[in-house]
Amino acid sequence: MCPSKVAQGDERGWIVPIGGAENKDGDPRILARFVALAGGPRAEILVIPTASQLRDAGSRYGQLFGELGAQRVEVVDFQTRHDGHDPERLARIERASAIFFTGGNQLRLSSVLGGTPAAQLIRARNAAGITVGGSSAGAAILSEHMIAYGGEGACPRADSVHLAPGLGLTNRFLIDQHFRQRDRLGRLLAALAYNPFAVGIGLDEDTAAFIGPDNTLEVEGSGSVTVVDAGALGFSSMADAGGRDPVCMLGLTLHVLIAGATFDLATRTASPGALLADRT
Amino acid sequence: MCPSKVAQGDERGWIVPIGGAENKDGDPRILARFVALAGGPRAEILVIPTASQLRDAGSRYGQLFGELGAQRVEVVDFQTRHDGHDPERLARIERASAIFFTGGNQLRLSSVLGGTPAAQLIRARNAAGITVGGSSAGAAILSEHMIAYGGEGACPRADSVHLAPGLGLTNRFLIDQHFRQRDRLGRLLAALAYNPFAVGIGLDEDTAAFIGPDNTLEVEGSGSVTVVDAGALGFSSMADAGGRDPVCMLGLTLHVLIAGATFDLATRTASPGALLADRT
Repeated sequence: MCPSKVAQGDERGWIVPIGGAENKDGDPRILARFVALAGGPRAEILVIPTASQLRDAGSRYGQLFGELGAQRVEVVDFQTRHDGHDPERLARIERASAIFFTGGNQLRLSSVLGGTPAAQLIRARNAAGITVGGSSAGAAILSEHMIAYGGEGACPRADSVHLAPGLGLTNRFLIDQHFRQRDRLGRLLAALAYNPFAVGIGLDEDTAAFIGPDNTLEVEGSGSVTVVDAGALGFSSMADAGGRDPVCMLGLTLHVLIAGATFDLATRTASPGALLADRT
Repeated sequence: MCPSKVAQGDERGWIVPIGGAENKDGDPRILARFVALAGGPRAEILVIPTASQLRDAGSRYGQLFGELGAQRVEVVDFQTRHDGHDPERLARIERASAIFFTGGNQLRLSSVLGGTPAAQLIRARNAAGITVGGSSAGAAILSEHMIAYGGEGACPRADSVHLAPGLGLTNRFLIDQHFRQRDRLGRLLAALAYNPFAVGIGLDEDTAAFIGPDNTLEVEGSGSVTVVDAGALGFSSMADAGGRDPVCMLGLTLHVLIAGATFDLATRTASPGALLADRT
């Protein structure tokens, strides 16, 4: 689905994809910043563990967010599509100040939640200002065009990526995660070759993109975020490629951002951001 | 990209996907209705043959639309991504009363036009009221989530469909074409299993869906349009399926429409439409 319309006078909430395996014990700066955006001591965070099949996926985050100062944390699973219509669960989405999706399988999220009132309400609440984030599969689901699965390797190949419709909080970014750790540049490029309208962001583990209401993202965490802007792409051979054929792509713009650096979607410019400020 | 915003007081233009191989000589009722929507004797139709690699793909339609009474028909090819920035081509999009995409390879359309000013302008012009249609690949490109390619067969399988971002005139329909002739029910179902938010429409050859500004579609032509509504889907096994595994889907609603019958997206109801009116 496309992002919900932001009402006049409102600001869309933050969108926070995390590349997976974020630091949870020693230096949980990504999750701490998420709690701060959710309202800090007034935060009421809803954790959705649907992507995972591990029984404690949700409760682990519940405990962490509590330790990081959130006022209340609820874990609400959606095991069936029927759950996406459940008034009690919808009421919990309605009163949350932030929503967090755990990792697992993003196709579980899209196939269980897609088209349900719960998915519609999450989009509407984000448009009305609340923060929505997730890690790994929970990051992938956030955008309109979701990387469902794909191959490894740096080279884009015709069949190296499978896209599916995601939750659609943003239609402007294509999000990939475990990016360096699983060697996923090729599949992100293949997705951009299909249709170069979007900006690809590849999130390393323990690294997040905090995407603000103004569509400027700032990096947090210990790794990097690879931003691939295909806006100036002059040529790709995607239409003529098939199977495992490598795809030619000319004129991509690439930025490698670390914590503090920013990318502004409106102007498509990257900036050292806090990195430069730190130096002065 | 998401559909452009329709300005207050405006109505979005018609969206006209055709299943391919439409009748061009004996009874070209689909193309005649397209010309009528384009303004009939005042129609200025822009034909975009980019999907095709056949030299005469555009001129064939140019001649047909002329014979069917259009005032002016121009064929404008976009061979490179640079062409999508060309002021002369943009001016032609600006003055057209309708735009028509020929068949060929939909990935050529998305990979050449995606993210260019031409794609943005076509969305904006459709939002401002002009009709946009296409046949075969030119039908596939019209929606936000485009079936790029896939396998044959009636059973949905985990890997039976590849989606890519399309032109994005509508985000509510998933469009497939050559539907009965190439046995594509399975791949349309697989796409809906990924995320059941959309309504699938499978267009037979010589058959079109005329999607009005109110998102009610009416069928025209000699075959049928298969509408698959996954809104009430109770369960799918997509998240657990892999490779060639068949996918279980419970609770789909199916309508088979022929010329005159309608489907209203807002209420998700099918109606015999003109078929019933003919009888009285």
